[in-house]
Amino acid sequence: MHLPPIISIVSKKRAGKTTLIVKLIPELKNRGYRVGTLKHDTHGFDIDHEGKDTYKHKEAGSDTVVISSPWKISIIKDVSQEMSVDEVLKSYFLDVDIVITEGYKKANKLQIEVFRKGAHEYPMYKKGDKSTTIAIASDTPLDVDIPIYNINDIKAIADLIESKLLLKPL
Amino acid sequence: MHLPPIISIVSKKRAGKTTLIVKLIPELKNRGYRVGTLKHDTHGFDIDHEGKDTYKHKEAGSDTVVISSPWKISIIKDVSQEMSVDEVLKSYFLDVDIVITEGYKKANKLQIEVFRKGAHEYPMYKKGDKSTTIAIASDTPLDVDIPIYNINDIKAIADLIESKLLLKPL
Repeated sequence: MHLPPIISIVSKKRAGKTTLIVKLIPELKNRGYRVGTLKHDTHGFDIDHEGKDTYKHKEAGSDTVVISSPWKISIIKDVSQEMSVDEVLKSYFLDVDIVITEGYKKANKLQIEVFRKGAHEYPMYKKGDKSTTIAIASDTPLDVDIPIYNINDIKAIADLIESKLLLKPL
Repeated sequence: MHLPPIISIVSKKRAGKTTLIVKLIPELKNRGYRVGTLKHDTHGFDIDHEGKDTYKHKEAGSDTVVISSPWKISIIKDVSQEMSVDEVLKSYFLDVDIVITEGYKKANKLQIEVFRKGAHEYPMYKKGDKSTTIAIASDTPLDVDIPIYNINDIKAIADLIESKLLLKPL
């Protein structure tokens, strides 16, 4: 089974993970890749609308609710324990070329950290860290020993992701 | 691969499919079954909340958006053509004991029709039909040649589903 490559966009709280991801998605799509995204939620989420039939099914105790249309399918499913990232890849992402995760700092996948000086004093990454962080997307210079990318230079960040994960070596 | 048994709850519009399904779910759960439900949507649905990160991922063009937590996982995925019921069973329902569909009249699965005299003049099922309809859940007597169940007798309808789909013959 061939799992798609995966890059984690991580940061301290409110540094701008979603903002970076929603810019990277169309950039990678424009380059011809099928893109999947995986958000890590630790607090509990509520994705459906009260009053919809699917919402009523779930409220009534359905273990897995699926709604299927000619254009889109959606699944809401109880789990007895959190699925690992690799389990999620195997179950739901076999038909994409790349998966971007929002969060999953501890999943040990290649990571890009997002840092904004208005949000925090220091990034999570520190010089000398043995980590899977391959770069920091930042709005300010930082004293670190890994590459820093301008947080707004989406093409350069997509180039990095492409070169590390998607392009075959010549 | 062992696909779970499936029963379709069908009707003309607004006869009360959802109402019956949300009563059947806890009844079957109480009998110890893991229950999945599948709703057929032909018009297009919108399941996420505007402004949520997952909504933004999808808006940005992500082909498959997944949100994973310790209790629940949800997937929103574009499809190029509608998945068949059997494809949905294989992909998302292998870990339940029974699947109830809302709609899917044409899927050729065993069906229970819901009929209410306040909603329509006649049921879809007609005497002599060669169909997969095994019973009608009705609030009124009907001149048909298949069993009629009181629409409010959930135990009897669950008994029917159990005997046709879940219980092994002695």
